[in-house]
Amino acid sequence: MPTNPLPTVVTVREVGLRDGLQSIARTLPTAHKLAWLQGAYEAGLREIEIGSFVPARLLPQLADTAELIAHALKLPGLVVSVLVPNLRGAEAAIASGAHSMVLPLSASHAHSLANLRKTPDEVVAEAARIRAARDSAGSSMLLEGGVGTAFGCTLQGEVKESEVLRLMQALLDAGCDRVSLADTVGYGDPAQVQRLFEKGRALVGERLWCGHFHDTRGLGLANVYAALQCGITRFDACLAGIGGCPHAPGASGNVSTEDLAYMLRSMKIDTGLNINALLGLRQQVATWLEGEALHGTLWQAGLPKTMKETA
Amino acid sequence: MPTNPLPTVVTVREVGLRDGLQSIARTLPTAHKLAWLQGAYEAGLREIEIGSFVPARLLPQLADTAELIAHALKLPGLVVSVLVPNLRGAEAAIASGAHSMVLPLSASHAHSLANLRKTPDEVVAEAARIRAARDSAGSSMLLEGGVGTAFGCTLQGEVKESEVLRLMQALLDAGCDRVSLADTVGYGDPAQVQRLFEKGRALVGERLWCGHFHDTRGLGLANVYAALQCGITRFDACLAGIGGCPHAPGASGNVSTEDLAYMLRSMKIDTGLNINALLGLRQQVATWLEGEALHGTLWQAGLPKTMKETA
Repeated sequence: MPTNPLPTVVTVREVGLRDGLQSIARTLPTAHKLAWLQGAYEAGLREIEIGSFVPARLLPQLADTAELIAHALKLPGLVVSVLVPNLRGAEAAIASGAHSMVLPLSASHAHSLANLRKTPDEVVAEAARIRAARDSAGSSMLLEGGVGTAFGCTLQGEVKESEVLRLMQALLDAGCDRVSLADTVGYGDPAQVQRLFEKGRALVGERLWCGHFHDTRGLGLANVYAALQCGITRFDACLAGIGGCPHAPGASGNVSTEDLAYMLRSMKIDTGLNINALLGLRQQVATWLEGEALHGTLWQAGLPKTMKETA
Repeated sequence: MPTNPLPTVVTVREVGLRDGLQSIARTLPTAHKLAWLQGAYEAGLREIEIGSFVPARLLPQLADTAELIAHALKLPGLVVSVLVPNLRGAEAAIASGAHSMVLPLSASHAHSLANLRKTPDEVVAEAARIRAARDSAGSSMLLEGGVGTAFGCTLQGEVKESEVLRLMQALLDAGCDRVSLADTVGYGDPAQVQRLFEKGRALVGERLWCGHFHDTRGLGLANVYAALQCGITRFDACLAGIGGCPHAPGASGNVSTEDLAYMLRSMKIDTGLNINALLGLRQQVATWLEGEALHGTLWQAGLPKTMKETA
């Protein structure tokens, strides 16, 4: 167990417009997404994953990603992030002017083949090509390698820590600026999270910078608390806890943004987020996604009497 | 932050038959409670809070507590626990032959007056009378003082740590064998939990032995993980996450037994619990409590592929 104090400032990256909406069959109209983006920005979110540059025939829900990015770039101080599955997507991302791109890699070979149609090492090779494309375009866009199924996989079962660490290092060696660890299918527990993030930090330092947790089995926030104790200061989250993975059955439910913001605020960790504004946005999004399974807990109980909204 | 390793063995005390059912308006028939008790025992629970010796006009839902205890005492190896609000209840508990009794004290004066019609120090005085009654009866029943609203209160707001620690010590001085800390209304966060349990442990050692958390705002299991890091090895939980407090609006939802058992198993902490049996019992209880708000997450996703049921 670590002896570090908790961080005093944490960045929450809203990934609902990408991880959330890709797991929902219906396509949200662009106007609603723009309103969501605006609401998230007004609630204090300063890093938002806008969408994904995948072919529209695979994910029609995210076909308007370029249009959303163009809008997002007008919001002062917002870090505009986008997911790219391959070099082709990365080229579109570079052209879009977004600030950062996340290349997902699945540490589970089975999940990697099902989800990305590549082995993990083929994704590492793609990372090198993406880095070269970025550099030759003269772009300063940040390239993050996201190591998914880092805590286990619904298809393969166990995923070895040594393999996760090897792939994390390989992504950095291939030219990624940063790496993150994702519990794509909600298999992680806090002891495991603390162990793997500590090892990862020991290996690559602060270049391991972000944790992405799903609440599939109720451990999402416990896992965040574990990672915080390793000094991790960036977390992905989805408003209303939507999200999942089409190739990981039963994997629905990212950590909900509003619950995460509440936990961090309660521990006096600064996020710049206005929780009541997040709860208001959640209510709005719930009307757009009527009939979909939403998650999260805080919205039912509201803020405690002891907590004052300050943002 | 502590440097202790996590405990290797943890006791989960099922409190659904007491904390759960007292917060639900309907009265579950005794036959259903007996089936619940039997199912919980068969799932490996070896400490169960059976009910509460309060006047039946106040909590008709728990009027059959003595009958349930008589049955529970026949289950080999089961620690039969019961809640007692005062000396009169304690006398009934001693006569019942149960193994342990929990005397609730509310560290919030406002909540104490609303819930128990006594100040916290009047409850301490009652603890001394209960201890005297137990000793003069020649009983070896264990007396636990449960310090509730230890992390804040819906009525009073903030509850000072110094006051919680003072009352904890006072309960022990008055003759309690053990004390526990309860987040009655779901205001606690993991940093606060870790801080208060560490201070409590420093003050009274292992006589502070149990944590009781509500998941009102989604932090129940994160709080358990925090307390585990302080060496706490006993936790209360309710099957299906039912429970709450009639005098604490919006406070519904104990940590769910099945989710807690899953988190502990996942971290290789031995509880002796059979999670699939707990999930089966949850399904049964859900039919009896149709229409009531149930909680918990694991039941939707089931056990991960990486987890083998061993109990």
